[in-house]
Amino acid sequence: MNTIGKILSLKTFGESHGPAMGGVLDGMPAGVEIDLDELQRFVDRRRTGQHTGSSTRDEKDRVEVLSGIWQGKTLGTPIGFVVRNADARSADYDKIARCYRPNHADYTWEVKYGIRDPRGGGRASARETVARVVAGGIALQTLDSLGITIESRIVQVGPRLGVAEMEQAVIDAAKDGDTLGGIIACTVKGVPAGLGEPVFGKLHAQLAAAMMSIPSVHGFEYGDGFEMAAKRGSEVMDQFVKHEDGTIGTVTNHSGGIQGGISNGEDIVMRIAFKPVPTLMRDVPTIDRDGNPVTLHPRGRHDVCVLQRALPVVEAMAALVILDNYLIKKTNVL
Amino acid sequence: MNTIGKILSLKTFGESHGPAMGGVLDGMPAGVEIDLDELQRFVDRRRTGQHTGSSTRDEKDRVEVLSGIWQGKTLGTPIGFVVRNADARSADYDKIARCYRPNHADYTWEVKYGIRDPRGGGRASARETVARVVAGGIALQTLDSLGITIESRIVQVGPRLGVAEMEQAVIDAAKDGDTLGGIIACTVKGVPAGLGEPVFGKLHAQLAAAMMSIPSVHGFEYGDGFEMAAKRGSEVMDQFVKHEDGTIGTVTNHSGGIQGGISNGEDIVMRIAFKPVPTLMRDVPTIDRDGNPVTLHPRGRHDVCVLQRALPVVEAMAALVILDNYLIKKTNVL
Amino acid sequence: MNTIGKILSLKTFGESHGPAMGGVLDGMPAGVEIDLDELQRFVDRRRTGQHTGSSTRDEKDRVEVLSGIWQGKTLGTPIGFVVRNADARSADYDKIARCYRPNHADYTWEVKYGIRDPRGGGRASARETVARVVAGGIALQTLDSLGITIESRIVQVGPRLGVAEMEQAVIDAAKDGDTLGGIIACTVKGVPAGLGEPVFGKLHAQLAAAMMSIPSVHGFEYGDGFEMAAKRGSEVMDQFVKHEDGTIGTVTNHSGGIQGGISNGEDIVMRIAFKPVPTLMRDVPTIDRDGNPVTLHPRGRHDVCVLQRALPVVEAMAALVILDNYLIKKTNVL
Amino acid sequence: MNTIGKILSLKTFGESHGPAMGGVLDGMPAGVEIDLDELQRFVDRRRTGQHTGSSTRDEKDRVEVLSGIWQGKTLGTPIGFVVRNADARSADYDKIARCYRPNHADYTWEVKYGIRDPRGGGRASARETVARVVAGGIALQTLDSLGITIESRIVQVGPRLGVAEMEQAVIDAAKDGDTLGGIIACTVKGVPAGLGEPVFGKLHAQLAAAMMSIPSVHGFEYGDGFEMAAKRGSEVMDQFVKHEDGTIGTVTNHSGGIQGGISNGEDIVMRIAFKPVPTLMRDVPTIDRDGNPVTLHPRGRHDVCVLQRALPVVEAMAALVILDNYLIKKTNVL
Repeated sequence: MNTIGKILSLKTFGESHGPAMGGVLDGMPAGVEIDLDELQRFVDRRRTGQHTGSSTRDEKDRVEVLSGIWQGKTLGTPIGFVVRNADARSADYDKIARCYRPNHADYTWEVKYGIRDPRGGGRASARETVARVVAGGIALQTLDSLGITIESRIVQVGPRLGVAEMEQAVIDAAKDGDTLGGIIACTVKGVPAGLGEPVFGKLHAQLAAAMMSIPSVHGFEYGDGFEMAAKRGSEVMDQFVKHEDGTIGTVTNHSGGIQGGISNGEDIVMRIAFKPVPTLMRDVPTIDRDGNPVTLHPRGRHDVCVLQRALPVVEAMAALVILDNYLIKKTNVL
Repeated sequence: MNTIGKILSLKTFGESHGPAMGGVLDGMPAGVEIDLDELQRFVDRRRTGQHTGSSTRDEKDRVEVLSGIWQGKTLGTPIGFVVRNADARSADYDKIARCYRPNHADYTWEVKYGIRDPRGGGRASARETVARVVAGGIALQTLDSLGITIESRIVQVGPRLGVAEMEQAVIDAAKDGDTLGGIIACTVKGVPAGLGEPVFGKLHAQLAAAMMSIPSVHGFEYGDGFEMAAKRGSEVMDQFVKHEDGTIGTVTNHSGGIQGGISNGEDIVMRIAFKPVPTLMRDVPTIDRDGNPVTLHPRGRHDVCVLQRALPVVEAMAALVILDNYLIKKTNVL
Repeated sequence: MNTIGKILSLKTFGESHGPAMGGVLDGMPAGVEIDLDELQRFVDRRRTGQHTGSSTRDEKDRVEVLSGIWQGKTLGTPIGFVVRNADARSADYDKIARCYRPNHADYTWEVKYGIRDPRGGGRASARETVARVVAGGIALQTLDSLGITIESRIVQVGPRLGVAEMEQAVIDAAKDGDTLGGIIACTVKGVPAGLGEPVFGKLHAQLAAAMMSIPSVHGFEYGDGFEMAAKRGSEVMDQFVKHEDGTIGTVTNHSGGIQGGISNGEDIVMRIAFKPVPTLMRDVPTIDRDGNPVTLHPRGRHDVCVLQRALPVVEAMAALVILDNYLIKKTNVL
Repeated sequence: MNTIGKILSLKTFGESHGPAMGGVLDGMPAGVEIDLDELQRFVDRRRTGQHTGSSTRDEKDRVEVLSGIWQGKTLGTPIGFVVRNADARSADYDKIARCYRPNHADYTWEVKYGIRDPRGGGRASARETVARVVAGGIALQTLDSLGITIESRIVQVGPRLGVAEMEQAVIDAAKDGDTLGGIIACTVKGVPAGLGEPVFGKLHAQLAAAMMSIPSVHGFEYGDGFEMAAKRGSEVMDQFVKHEDGTIGTVTNHSGGIQGGISNGEDIVMRIAFKPVPTLMRDVPTIDRDGNPVTLHPRGRHDVCVLQRALPVVEAMAALVILDNYLIKKTNVL
């Protein structure tokens, strides 16, 4: 259940304030060189305290690889790893354990399991994404050796589109004890044609599931996405062309690099919409387990906007999906 | 690969102009009453020739159930079914087999497998959705017995939003030999709180994958979706409320009935964006397998806009996901 | 649930006296030549009425392939197929529907599902193996093109080991209205070294699961099997040797071609034990649904011994496992 | 790949001389009380240095649970755990890394992955079973709360069947620098009728796969097993009986508690055959990577017979399979 991927599969575990987050990346091909320092740097991109509007909580997030990599190379065995939860504070969780924070998973989690770890959101915390970034970082290095690269960037924060405006929007929201969401665009370059499974496993369906599984994501589109719904067929037709080097491509890329669920060799282009952070730095009225009204007072350190920290998560999820499909492709012929 | 779902799983097969489309719906609980006439009527909603802008090809699409239902009830065994491809015409496919139609899967399919059935798009044809509708229709009847209902409607065709305008838009596009896409909204009512798997199997991630796997879909959002990216946290907060009957709900539903990937008992609300039909009724320039320029002349009977026919497909996919998660939920406690 | 295999996966469906048995073989690589006449002949080996001690019921078992093979080659798409249940007799099943036949699945099935199709055992009938043989026959042809061959033979019938004695044992048991089991040995030749997944997916663990899933099987062993438990380590050591052609092999094959769960290039050798057929041709006392004693009188046509008919089933299961692992192997390196 | 189970699934990781062994037990129902001290005691049963004939290497094997259990109860989230490899010695592995030990996985592993961790057998070491025992111990406690218990015992060591004789057999083999295998019998009591999936997921097929995946296992049988092949149908018929408490059972249990792949409420009985330990305490001739003859001299500390240590592994695997099927059963009806 806590797993994604078919050949290359990642299973993660960990509660926000338990001993550690971690995961197992299974199905990694053998003999791939992995630079653990580079991996640590990638994971560091997700840390708090580095960006305008991100929490000042100091998470060290040191990656400890427990298996599957030896002398700098993958063994083909599962890569187990943990990241300790160093900064968890002991606290009186009695009250919060009885309250349902709005737009959080407290209520739904409790209905589903009849029990929940209330400390820092437990497993519902976005802290679980650290395991995605570790695994995704390994996949990214592997893709890099294949000439496949992944880039992501923030294209909208709240209602703002320009870089300078976006930073100011975060500062303004913070002043009001409020929060912001936004949109991240992600591009995968160098993907060979032929990746993706038709019907239910279309490459963009897999990417959608991967991105929608990131906490706070409320929308996904690829190529021209929702705008495509307003266009005529003749306006979004990607004409084929034979390049001088003999390869086949398309003149435009309304299709976002995927046709019929299979990559066509053009850049894979997608956009992911994040809702605003649900925890406000102001009093918030809600109810407790018995339905009684209560007021939540701001406490702890929280992000105003998570988009900077979400960039490596988006890249990690894209990397896991693309590498998995690269491996699946190998089984399409004898 | 051609499978969706964990406990309730659907595997489909079939090429557009082969002997039959079909599938196996496995994991259906035993003892559920299924009305096969009602199922046939549901499948008929997907047929051609019934709507403005849909192809005039007459597909009978008679569902033949081969197993798993006996004396009107499910046996708990896999439900195998076929729908014959009655109306396939023999034709000279030599030319089309060598050409890559723009925005179709001809090229990507050929790169992936090194071989393809060019007749009517083979398995890349949207005809494969007939198997989804059969299986989804069975899931819908099951959900109905649980008080869970699914509705879908067209909310945009091309750039048009009003019902009268939408029909005219199709007529106009058809005159120009052009095609349209649009947006379908889908609402699931009566879902109990607690369905969906946190982390990678979030309910909306599963729904996204299911909807994005429908041919021509380029975008998915739930709740306030992409608009949420432009809002502040305080603007989209769904306050909890205790209803008079003692149940807990929310005052607003920006979250679209899902929090932390788990249903909260409110309506599940989502929107799905379709690209315009890729086959135009006019000459289209493209290239053949060797990269030589060729012109495709309009032939056959094709949809101008598929949204009417896509409604039962959207409902079917939603039903499969919701029922699967209903069953998974049973395993969350001893 | 009704599925076996990871990359190459078979899902089957069908009740013994329903409209048809069938299945979907998914994950077959594209471009493989399949001879459908040869496939039919392989399926015919499983038919009744051909061997001493097998039922005289005439099952035509004509294989109808519905998808995935075109112009004699696999398309890489799922191969859907059905085999009609032509010879099912209408009958009064009221009594049998209320009785639990000893050593059959009537009782367990009813407890599990709360409902069962009593006609001919429903899905619990060994008739379901016809779908295995169809899919396995396709896998066998594929393996053959890779130089991998599978042989099976009966090595014991009841307590008898010699061919002439075995036939006589069946005749004797039939006279008494009794039945027999036995042991089948299966050898896979030409398997390259390196197939099989360590830990839970060991090649012999997969083979064991596949063989134990065949109706009536009660035991599985590979290499020297149970006899190995009585030996010392020095007695079963397979010494490595470098052959003149430079390949590495072993002098003996106590290990049965598998070491550490991975094939080593030697013949894969296994033995499968079948219990006697549970349906006797004599009065059998049992109880009905309410616990009242009843006597079952012999009716219908049943096998005295199923081993001849089981040979192609054993070969089919072996073929599915080996080909699946051949494909998985492709993903072990980039 | 390194995973077993459908709803309750265990994924393990770890190389014998890497930092740690570990695993993730996913799908555990929420709210189950787990006694971590009892768990540690169960894991201790697998340790070396406690039995006649087992290695004197001191493995502490302290279980560290990283997630999924809080305040003594399961959260419904994945249970991540690690067991550090405390006693690994640094050594010169250059020679051993070039040699293929007979009846070990050195050669097959190298062919499969092109790379292997030679230290102590890497992931091919039976040390991986420590993760099975941790997860299985959690499953055992859960089953215990349901009234389901699992027992295992050694019934044969080498050619010896009596307890006193078995111990002597180990002492004798050790004197000769030789090793022994044997047979373990395992019984599961209190399993409700109705567990197991017909066709490919038969309960005994799942048990077979689980047991055959334990290192050194070469054979599996349930009920009367291989002996059943020599019997007539009338000799192994388990007559149904209605007990005084109204429940239905069978008078005999030749079927081993499973009929048609589904539990019938009687004891589940199975036997598992282990080959002798492959590492001898004497000089062993073999070849190196280039095919040159080499002699392996005895070094390190190794088991003469692993059966005592294998008992908790057998129980653990049985527990994982039974609990998984207990959960699956919940989805058979709405």
